[in-house]
Amino acid sequence: MTAPDNRVVATMDLLVEDRHFRRAWSSPEDVGRKAVAQNFADIAAMGARPTALLVGFAAPRDLPLSWADGLTEGLRAECAHAGGAVVGGDTVAADTITVAITALGDLGGRPAVRRDGARPGDVIAVTGPLGLSSAGYDLLEAGVLGPEDARRALGGAAAGGADPAWAACLREHRRPRPPYAEGPHAARLGARAMLDVSDGLVQDLGHVARASGVAIDLDTAALVPDPALEEAAALLERLGAARRGPVERMLFGGEDHALAAAFPPGTELPPQWRRIGSAAAPGADGAVVTVDGRPARARGWDHFR
Amino acid sequence: MTAPDNRVVATMDLLVEDRHFRRAWSSPEDVGRKAVAQNFADIAAMGARPTALLVGFAAPRDLPLSWADGLTEGLRAECAHAGGAVVGGDTVAADTITVAITALGDLGGRPAVRRDGARPGDVIAVTGPLGLSSAGYDLLEAGVLGPEDARRALGGAAAGGADPAWAACLREHRRPRPPYAEGPHAARLGARAMLDVSDGLVQDLGHVARASGVAIDLDTAALVPDPALEEAAALLERLGAARRGPVERMLFGGEDHALAAAFPPGTELPPQWRRIGSAAAPGADGAVVTVDGRPARARGWDHFR
Repeated sequence: MTAPDNRVVATMDLLVEDRHFRRAWSSPEDVGRKAVAQNFADIAAMGARPTALLVGFAAPRDLPLSWADGLTEGLRAECAHAGGAVVGGDTVAADTITVAITALGDLGGRPAVRRDGARPGDVIAVTGPLGLSSAGYDLLEAGVLGPEDARRALGGAAAGGADPAWAACLREHRRPRPPYAEGPHAARLGARAMLDVSDGLVQDLGHVARASGVAIDLDTAALVPDPALEEAAALLERLGAARRGPVERMLFGGEDHALAAAFPPGTELPPQWRRIGSAAAPGADGAVVTVDGRPARARGWDHFR
Repeated sequence: MTAPDNRVVATMDLLVEDRHFRRAWSSPEDVGRKAVAQNFADIAAMGARPTALLVGFAAPRDLPLSWADGLTEGLRAECAHAGGAVVGGDTVAADTITVAITALGDLGGRPAVRRDGARPGDVIAVTGPLGLSSAGYDLLEAGVLGPEDARRALGGAAAGGADPAWAACLREHRRPRPPYAEGPHAARLGARAMLDVSDGLVQDLGHVARASGVAIDLDTAALVPDPALEEAAALLERLGAARRGPVERMLFGGEDHALAAAFPPGTELPPQWRRIGSAAAPGADGAVVTVDGRPARARGWDHFR
């Protein structure tokens, strides 16, 4: 959201234990890094440079100090990585661990990029990984938390190697790496609408479509899955866990924290931005998101597997 | 805290039910107004004008909608009163009501007033009510929540009148009214250190004394209690409740949200700022706060009653 002076943008998220993170699934450093990443991704999606963070931390008095230290280290590290600094906060006692994050960003004199600026004819493009976080979540749910579980569940070949697929997916889920610098970059390139992909590409672009009054069609030919995503999706199927194909995960998987934007037609996009679709005047169905010209639905899309 | 660009200041507080507020003691509008007041008072104490608020709200799914609506109304009303606007936030489900508030303020081109700028010879002054909130808290603890309780506990004479003392103290506790505009005003007058009195005047000025490396002496002759405070202190004594005299409440009572500041010697203070003491080079005791030249202690100060 833009603060009234139009120079600073700000965003806030609340994370509650066992609703937004699990201590059994993520280290405190992971929780800290992800908390910052999802907020600074929001800042970047407005076209701003992350600058400052305020952290509210509510925790039971018997929480191990090492957990709080780990969280702080994760917050600090991701903040430094994104180019910001922790400038304040509050610590209180409570029954449940709750982390409140406010992130501030600097627009560098430009207006904030919002969700309502897409126009018919715009190019829809994305930067950053898609789908891996969703596979990571399903791996955690299937009990694959680390190398031991992977060996047991997947066998030596699938579990091993320098950077096995399951490890890449867990990493994207635990420590997403939003392409922070691409937010201001896209704004300078003229992006008319932008957001970070947190609830799934189709759902989030639905916000852009409705706010902008355009229809958006995505082209699955342009959605080329990461090899690790393909492999992890196959592994999950072998485990009898969630049956979602790699392209379906790219379209509907949450917590990617990639950036998606609408650019004016003819914008010369740098290689890190992949064109994945286009905006048009809304048809009979209204301001909706379609995939290859057909209604986009998350469940039962077997043809995407 | 100052954001890195030095134009915007930001502050965050977490409020947890039954630790920072009680639904039995305060209406949801009260909770909302106080949550904003304590954060915007922090903003004002840095010499900034309150501009924007972000609100994180965690609540059980079975919380009555009317409570959430009341909270929102209180947040909105105090925000408007202070001159700011709610610009964003987050709502999540949780077992305990938790309100996270981030407040932003505009320094108007001035540097932020901090706690470490007081110098020997400075005048210590205060604006806003002191002690009434503390009496309000003790009245609530003694079961005086409204007119019925007041009549029962205090008798007709003490309870009645247009604005009885107990009502004034409850109001200051439930809905503190920080003198927002006096923060930037004090900055323009040259205030070298400032804070809002949230933990009690002596304790908070202790932060200024230590951060600035000065000793601060307060003059009780300048601490003239509000008549409502005198009356409420007497009522509390009659009730057999907390035995703290009015001046002791002014020195040690919390949640006043008055502003206290150090001004250079010779500053012409407007009438709303009362001179209550002075700063000096630290003596043998170091950077401490004294009252009438004697060590300041909260307990057992019967001579202040």
